[in-house]
Amino acid sequence: IESGSLFRLQRMLNALHPAEIAHLLESSPLEQRKIAWELIKRENEGLVLIELNDDVRSQLTEEMDTGDLIEALKDLDTDDMADFLQGLPDTVIQETLSAMGRQERERVEVVLGYDEDTAGGLMDTEVVTIRSDVTVEVVLRYLRMRGDLPSHTDRVIVVDSYDKYLGVVSLSKLLTSQPDDSILFIMDHEYSAIHADTDKNEVAALFEDRDLISAPVINEVGKLLGRITIDDVVDVIRDEAEHSIKSMAGLNEEDDLFAPILPSVKRRAVWLGTNLITAFMAAAVISQFTETIESAVALAVLMGIVPSMGGIAGSQTLTMVIRGIALGQIGKSNTHSLLRKELLLGLINGVIWAVVVFAISAIALKDIEIGILIGVAMLLNLLAAPLSGVLLPLTLRKMNIDPALAGSVLLTTVTDIVGYAGVLGLASLLLPYLRQIFA
Amino acid sequence: IESGSLFRLQRMLNALHPAEIAHLLESSPLEQRKIAWELIKRENEGLVLIELNDDVRSQLTEEMDTGDLIEALKDLDTDDMADFLQGLPDTVIQETLSAMGRQERERVEVVLGYDEDTAGGLMDTEVVTIRSDVTVEVVLRYLRMRGDLPSHTDRVIVVDSYDKYLGVVSLSKLLTSQPDDSILFIMDHEYSAIHADTDKNEVAALFEDRDLISAPVINEVGKLLGRITIDDVVDVIRDEAEHSIKSMAGLNEEDDLFAPILPSVKRRAVWLGTNLITAFMAAAVISQFTETIESAVALAVLMGIVPSMGGIAGSQTLTMVIRGIALGQIGKSNTHSLLRKELLLGLINGVIWAVVVFAISAIALKDIEIGILIGVAMLLNLLAAPLSGVLLPLTLRKMNIDPALAGSVLLTTVTDIVGYAGVLGLASLLLPYLRQIFA
Repeated sequence: IESGSLFRLQRMLNALHPAEIAHLLESSPLEQRKIAWELIKRENEGLVLIELNDDVRSQLTEEMDTGDLIEALKDLDTDDMADFLQGLPDTVIQETLSAMGRQERERVEVVLGYDEDTAGGLMDTEVVTIRSDVTVEVVLRYLRMRGDLPSHTDRVIVVDSYDKYLGVVSLSKLLTSQPDDSILFIMDHEYSAIHADTDKNEVAALFEDRDLISAPVINEVGKLLGRITIDDVVDVIRDEAEHSIKSMAGLNEEDDLFAPILPSVKRRAVWLGTNLITAFMAAAVISQFTETIESAVALAVLMGIVPSMGGIAGSQTLTMVIRGIALGQIGKSNTHSLLRKELLLGLINGVIWAVVVFAISAIALKDIEIGILIGVAMLLNLLAAPLSGVLLPLTLRKMNIDPALAGSVLLTTVTDIVGYAGVLGLASLLLPYLRQIFA
Repeated sequence: IESGSLFRLQRMLNALHPAEIAHLLESSPLEQRKIAWELIKRENEGLVLIELNDDVRSQLTEEMDTGDLIEALKDLDTDDMADFLQGLPDTVIQETLSAMGRQERERVEVVLGYDEDTAGGLMDTEVVTIRSDVTVEVVLRYLRMRGDLPSHTDRVIVVDSYDKYLGVVSLSKLLTSQPDDSILFIMDHEYSAIHADTDKNEVAALFEDRDLISAPVINEVGKLLGRITIDDVVDVIRDEAEHSIKSMAGLNEEDDLFAPILPSVKRRAVWLGTNLITAFMAAAVISQFTETIESAVALAVLMGIVPSMGGIAGSQTLTMVIRGIALGQIGKSNTHSLLRKELLLGLINGVIWAVVVFAISAIALKDIEIGILIGVAMLLNLLAAPLSGVLLPLTLRKMNIDPALAGSVLLTTVTDIVGYAGVLGLASLLLPYLRQIFA
């Protein structure tokens, strides 16, 4: 690239919003990504970094020195700063913290003190608080004096003199109340605060259900610590969904489109390796029946159909159950009904497809015996599939293993083994008799 | 259930937030769902209905008469009302509209005039507008007189006397400005409005990137039509993710955990039927090589490993690409780099797993010839997998077919056929020679 076009690229890049620059970097192959990064203005670096996924971010920060990092970080919100710092080596965290002003450092340290997957780790500590014993007019005067409010401030938080959380007043309430109204009178006492150790997915569910823009965060004795805003919750919702989607294919949700080759090979190899074990287990099952296959090679042609259909049916149930778990819709009280419904579905689908494969085998391939065997094995596997589709993820969850990650490999292990063992086992038991009947 | 516990259940139900009631209904088996629905107070019905997914909602509304529906609808926002109405039969829409006041009807009709997948279909028409030639004090007086602001009002919208959009003023700006500041002076002229026919996923991307709470919606000549708020955008984000996840398993994103059996059977059967065709195509490939299998039954035992690994590798690439498309990260400019990267990944993984299966076959099963065949076929299939993982979804998108829905079935068709044809084709060509070499 010649210098003229480089200059144009630079001007174009820096005219974009930080999130759009981040998108562009994530969609660029490695080499171009590095060139583009060099062109981004110093003052945009922090905002762009915070919008990048973890993988791309650490790629870029690895090559920055601590001074540049501190410079990039300095204008960020406390929650973004804490989130960013959590991904850096300890020595860099210490250096960055000690380069900050005392007040700011203390704020970031509060957030760093909580797990990043909790409300405490999500919260921003910059909040506008007022007392309950003043009037609207006093608050309006205070806000005017204060100047700019933190971004996404839709309500101010009412606390007592010990910073204990009492309630909130929305900005629209402040704007539509009479100047001499008392805060105590207009505040919302019912607006519930979130405990700092609440799981972030619970926080997201609360925001979604109640259509919140912001919510106060308190500690175990009710002291106000900060607030969570919808923009961070949107990220949580997006991440949760990406996590589900990518886990189900054995990918990491931070895997980026142009991740360096070696880490990608490693991540994907885990899943491929696990699947190889499953495939060899299926092969071990088949190898028990070599004599049966030798006596009817049509079995080798058609036997793969049964595990294949079981895998599809099972993954449908599994997907429903994994989403049900993620969205908190599955508990003890409805597991039985769910299992009954999925088994009934499996039975109906099993009968339908057993008849179809029997018909195809009998009419098109003129092999009634094999048709019967494949049909019966199909029915069995389409019952085993929903059974494991419901029970496997629930068991994994009890063992604190992510069902989205491990569920589908385990499921195909079951449907492969039941599928092959079904066809070939039935064949070795029944084929001689069936041959006699239909001879 | 006896009447005492029914009464307690009713009290408990109605103490919940509408979204929580909706969750509860969605997590309940059919019979319980109907009983619970009967217990919900009239005034909550509309709010609960709007939170339900389409399937459950239409189940419940089918049994309501038009009068009850109108009653349930009357307190909803215009966007929710339009969304709700779109799912009802035309006659009910007409009846409901004619039962409304003129102003409200006109508002709903504006929203109904736009596709529900566009900004126009998402917007709410209730907005607070002001003129630019007044002072902050005048606006504050106006707001106080007006009383309650529509929910999620974080900024008021500045328009001229023809309702042409000019800009916005945030509530926090109003609160922190001096009373005699002019709106023209403090307003944000750069805050961009969204065109009514913008696709809803683009709207969501804009809200995510810019961390918006609300955005004005305008028509093609710049006239203000309404505004979109973050709560509706969160639903769009959630729906998009659910759609991706469920489509990839051939499910409908509205499929509910306890959907009635028959529609579920139908939906799942489509996917199973398509898979059966794929499976029979694989069987047709195998059937071309029955003689080869008869001469080496170990092939029947191990041949399934190759398509299985190809399916996994392919689905990993496919998932990356489908997400990349959904998030707008894949375009003409980076397709080549992506393909190159995925092929390189496939090559490395192919070599690794080819060596592993060769080693297992040669050492554990003491069959060097079959080991070579399976290894080479594996390498070929682990190159075919990323190739189709990248090209299939991109081709489907060009044909306006949802890659999340059709991609995975087509992909396994390719990996199954390449897998089986690879192992068995190589065997029929090379096995005799290999036998001579290693005899």
